[in-house]
Amino acid sequence: MSFKPVSGIGEFGLIDRLAKIIAPSAQQRPELLEGIGDDCAVFQISDSLLQVSTTDILTEQVHFDLLTTPMHHLGSKAISVNVSDICAMNALPDYALISIAVPPKMPVEMVEELYRGIEHASSLYGLAIAGGDTSSSPSGLFISVSMAGRTTPEQLALRKGASPGDLICVTGTLGGSCAGLHLLQREKATMIEQMRNNQPYNKEVMAELQEYTEAIRCHLLPEARIDIIDFFSIEQIVPTAMIDISDGLAADLGHLCRRSVVGAKIDESKLPVLAEARAVAEEFQQDVFDWALTGGEDYQLLFTVPKSQYDLIATHRDITVIGEITKKEEGLLLTDIFGMTIDMAEMKRGFDHFAE
Amino acid sequence: MSFKPVSGIGEFGLIDRLAKIIAPSAQQRPELLEGIGDDCAVFQISDSLLQVSTTDILTEQVHFDLLTTPMHHLGSKAISVNVSDICAMNALPDYALISIAVPPKMPVEMVEELYRGIEHASSLYGLAIAGGDTSSSPSGLFISVSMAGRTTPEQLALRKGASPGDLICVTGTLGGSCAGLHLLQREKATMIEQMRNNQPYNKEVMAELQEYTEAIRCHLLPEARIDIIDFFSIEQIVPTAMIDISDGLAADLGHLCRRSVVGAKIDESKLPVLAEARAVAEEFQQDVFDWALTGGEDYQLLFTVPKSQYDLIATHRDITVIGEITKKEEGLLLTDIFGMTIDMAEMKRGFDHFAE
Repeated sequence: MSFKPVSGIGEFGLIDRLAKIIAPSAQQRPELLEGIGDDCAVFQISDSLLQVSTTDILTEQVHFDLLTTPMHHLGSKAISVNVSDICAMNALPDYALISIAVPPKMPVEMVEELYRGIEHASSLYGLAIAGGDTSSSPSGLFISVSMAGRTTPEQLALRKGASPGDLICVTGTLGGSCAGLHLLQREKATMIEQMRNNQPYNKEVMAELQEYTEAIRCHLLPEARIDIIDFFSIEQIVPTAMIDISDGLAADLGHLCRRSVVGAKIDESKLPVLAEARAVAEEFQQDVFDWALTGGEDYQLLFTVPKSQYDLIATHRDITVIGEITKKEEGLLLTDIFGMTIDMAEMKRGFDHFAE
Repeated sequence: MSFKPVSGIGEFGLIDRLAKIIAPSAQQRPELLEGIGDDCAVFQISDSLLQVSTTDILTEQVHFDLLTTPMHHLGSKAISVNVSDICAMNALPDYALISIAVPPKMPVEMVEELYRGIEHASSLYGLAIAGGDTSSSPSGLFISVSMAGRTTPEQLALRKGASPGDLICVTGTLGGSCAGLHLLQREKATMIEQMRNNQPYNKEVMAELQEYTEAIRCHLLPEARIDIIDFFSIEQIVPTAMIDISDGLAADLGHLCRRSVVGAKIDESKLPVLAEARAVAEEFQQDVFDWALTGGEDYQLLFTVPKSQYDLIATHRDITVIGEITKKEEGLLLTDIFGMTIDMAEMKRGFDHFAE
């Protein structure tokens, strides 16, 4: 008998297999309206109340690098990325549980700093940290956050629900997180190089980073767009479909379209690229649109609304209409800045944790 | 500036420090009725509905050893220990989220077997697996389970609430899990010894384990006492206080008494020790009462009821009255089988993951 390593089937392959195994337990509870396959699971608490819930595991050396990530920022980001998943359901967060596995030699002060970041972000979002668990870890820090939020059956937004003709909208700017990551990785390489050469740490290199505080902030301290959920509530907008951008616009639009059984065409020239990301991309001689489309971790909301709601959407200066939903047969198309049509399905997929 | 390693303050010291940091976020949500300090957090969903929620992180080499733990059993146990926490609130489970961090070289078949165990236990408890997250792990398997359940304000049982005069009751039998662990650890030592000597694996050693299937089952496949919650519901019993036995009877009774601000006296001769655990303890030349009091991982329910409910409790053949709640000043006392009085506060505490 031969065994297949997890790395051989990749993250999505593994999730598909595990989802099949646990399907019967989900089917025995009709209150579970959505299980695996959306940003959150949806559980019907009562006729008028839906609970949405999500969980994320953050692994040192896979999701974060303690050389370039201050603990306070890491704690804050761990909360924001989960609140972002709650927002993607058009819901607001209630409470979270936090588990950590910590190497016994890690200073208590570092763990406290992590929790100060968790607390800071939670207070911003009106989220209660309700409990958790701690364990030692034989190697590296693990953080597991699970979070519950609430919405109503009328307001719930899923990845499915977009129809041909709907406008495709994105909040904020894109590419900033990827630009920030490039800067931090270069900083780390310089630092390691200097350590190898026994040179003292050179603060002038840090000065270079200060030019790009916004891109670095986008990477280290993304903010969940809870303000957009408030805007939707005030303007009585319910997106026909919504997802948050964690894998990259191209991949996440792909998820939304697959679940909605539709196609999409978007206009590269309309992508709201962060100005600073352009400058960084130029410095790295890379294509900033590539970062915006496939970089990931921008934690903006990608959603669709009927064309009739264009006027409502247009009042918000931080929402950009970037394209239109089409029929499934038309695929996922991008008109680039030169007017060429590109098949987005050919673009590289989001990050696979198990890639060899 | 000097830093203190996490191992220097221990698990309870760390939790105390972190709980202080995150207290403000909890205070901003009055619906959070109980945060850190009970088996579950309690969140008020509506006037008539409380959600209880818990999370556990299971770390390879800390919580389980893959040499002695079949993946199916591990998956099942990961669910049962969380359902046990839900039961300890006099609540029933609704749904769970599962996160895993997996070494990329681990066979897919092993992960699938883990999820078959998760699914098997979930189906038994009427629990829906609603989603989760996967990551790679640089070393060892991590499993994080978070679970939500429900009860009513009238039925909720906390660690606090016991009064002097209340009867102290325990479900099922004790010491089985600790006996099972001793057997499995001896089995592992034998296996490693044989491997070192290049001997083929000797099945006769397995035959020795088969004498003690019940103790091994107690350790590898503990069952949450959801049947007791159903019994309480039918008999309209609401324990004045309740906790599940994960750290060991002495430590968990200590938690209950500390939160209830009471003392307790229990009678060693009344402890419902698993018969097989006696035999195993004899073989290992150890005290089975020590295993019952400090062994941990029995996942039975420890609860208190007013004396007036004795007749109701006495109808259940799997509940044993082991003592009585006293005033705080009287401390935590055990009358041993020789009639001697022992201070349980002197007994070794539950397992500390960060112990050096």
